Amino acid sequence: MRIDVKAAAHLLEEQDNILILCHSHPDGDTLGCGFALCSALQKKGKRARVACADEIPTKYAYLWREVERQSFEPQFIVAVDVADPKLLGHPVEEQYAQRINLCIDHHGSNILYAEKTLLDPSAGATCEIIFELLRELEMRIDAAVADCIYTGLSTDTGCFRYSNATARTHRIAAEMIDCGADAPIINQVMFETKTRTYAALERLALDSLELFYEGRAALVTVTQEMYRLSGSDESECDPIASLPRQIEGVLVGVMLRERADGTFKASVRTHRPVDAAELCRRMGGGGHPRAAGCQLEGPLQCAREELLRNIKAVLEA
Amino acid sequence: MRIDVKAAAHLLEEQDNILILCHSHPDGDTLGCGFALCSALQKKGKRARVACADEIPTKYAYLWREVERQSFEPQFIVAVDVADPKLLGHPVEEQYAQRINLCIDHHGSNILYAEKTLLDPSAGATCEIIFELLRELEMRIDAAVADCIYTGLSTDTGCFRYSNATARTHRIAAEMIDCGADAPIINQVMFETKTRTYAALERLALDSLELFYEGRAALVTVTQEMYRLSGSDESECDPIASLPRQIEGVLVGVMLRERADGTFKASVRTHRPVDAAELCRRMGGGGHPRAAGCQLEGPLQCAREELLRNIKAVLEA
Repeated sequence: MRIDVKAAAHLLEEQDNILILCHSHPDGDTLGCGFALCSALQKKGKRARVACADEIPTKYAYLWREVERQSFEPQFIVAVDVADPKLLGHPVEEQYAQRINLCIDHHGSNILYAEKTLLDPSAGATCEIIFELLRELEMRIDAAVADCIYTGLSTDTGCFRYSNATARTHRIAAEMIDCGADAPIINQVMFETKTRTYAALERLALDSLELFYEGRAALVTVTQEMYRLSGSDESECDPIASLPRQIEGVLVGVMLRERADGTFKASVRTHRPVDAAELCRRMGGGGHPRAAGCQLEGPLQCAREELLRNIKAVLEA
Repeated sequence: MRIDVKAAAHLLEEQDNILILCHSHPDGDTLGCGFALCSALQKKGKRARVACADEIPTKYAYLWREVERQSFEPQFIVAVDVADPKLLGHPVEEQYAQRINLCIDHHGSNILYAEKTLLDPSAGATCEIIFELLRELEMRIDAAVADCIYTGLSTDTGCFRYSNATARTHRIAAEMIDCGADAPIINQVMFETKTRTYAALERLALDSLELFYEGRAALVTVTQEMYRLSGSDESECDPIASLPRQIEGVLVGVMLRERADGTFKASVRTHRPVDAAELCRRMGGGGHPRAAGCQLEGPLQCAREELLRNIKAVLEA
């Protein structure tokens, strides 16, 4: 059942011992949502904690600086920025997928798996919805919570660069800065600083860049071998996904990355008029119009061929 | 004499045949100011035009799509985003520097050369001040004017990344999007698009990346051979200079590029506390504390050794 911000606020107000689930391979939006909500609930006197199947990269440590470690038997389970319970990852999916009480999300592709869903696909980041929820709950947004919400806004919109950064996104960013969010430092950490291992991985990935279909499609491949050579791992590879689309004339940019089990994940970024979500749906995935993803079976040659065949079909449509 | 927005608006209301001057080597803020103001004045029935000493790069063409070409003998001269009349460039400086009636600017370093100056150093971009001026003049901000103002906000703040992007900057950006600014396309043109030749050059340059002195110095080399292989040339290589410093732990990042005559140019970018200007002065160059440059004799091995010896000395100091 879909519910609105007011109903979600009312629901949360009645609960305690709240477990907040982020998606696996966590990004700034799911973590920003998780820790903003957790911190705000704790400051209201409730018990709350955040769980994520994957280890959280240390660059995000400032998000939980005012969050207390609390243990309790969860009585109410909230998933934030999670479009499909599969995205919770092992073992969180097995443990909780069947009993999520509330999902708060901005993905149009959300499969409405939770008991109640607060879904707003017009939000540039799920953190915009968390902001509205906290306002509805009349929770004071302090600097720590503002940092969380700003992080979600900024990271999910490429620092306000992409089409999902709306007037609302900017207005909430302004409020977060007024509440004490340290925007310049957050942006430096999220967008300016590259670890040595990431820089090495990026270099290997760029060496794999190929252009197809008169330069309208660009593909970079990230393999397990590249992780080994660079000392990096898949927790760092996200920013590579945006590089192929930056090349002049490219309408579809793809990062194809090999998983430990030999399957592949394609991260697709497009320019108008190519619909990334539609392209990914053809391969069993989904997402947003300009950014989407899907899983592909290995080996690389097969994943690559399936991907290129579908890109060709979409470009010719 | 410094004046406020109200006084500047009043002054402009009384004038006609208004010449608006941008600084030379024009950027998105000076051009956004110029064309926003010109377009708004023309739509109020006044005669106005923009002048710039340098040719304006074609990527900015959308800024003047609704500006009429008008010729007239200027009766009132406005400089926008110009801190010092020297920055007007030849021949605009010689022609107008002595008779500027109004300067609108956000540089704290403005030398107050104009008859009247509307100066606000707290503005992230001069376009913020232009927005306030147009609002004071009760001018309707249409999509063409909104594109101009948004361009200034976005380009001067690194797409809202740097510390000069304040809550006010975000609020004005939100209003501009509401007025019809095509933010995603503007950001794509200004920040996202790499030519294929630049992308190829960047890839070759990154392959040359080396770290020195426990990772505190990073060097990329751009050779004539790389220009040949990529189809690029030195007019495109500037953005590569900022890449080495982005790596975590790097205090001195250098792009060493080979010139056609076999000499080398070093472009140095540093983080505190390393002074780039001081490092370059040791090699006969100069610049700013965080960005400087110098010339070095070839062959590559010699240039590289001199550079590394001086970097070592500065890091040990």
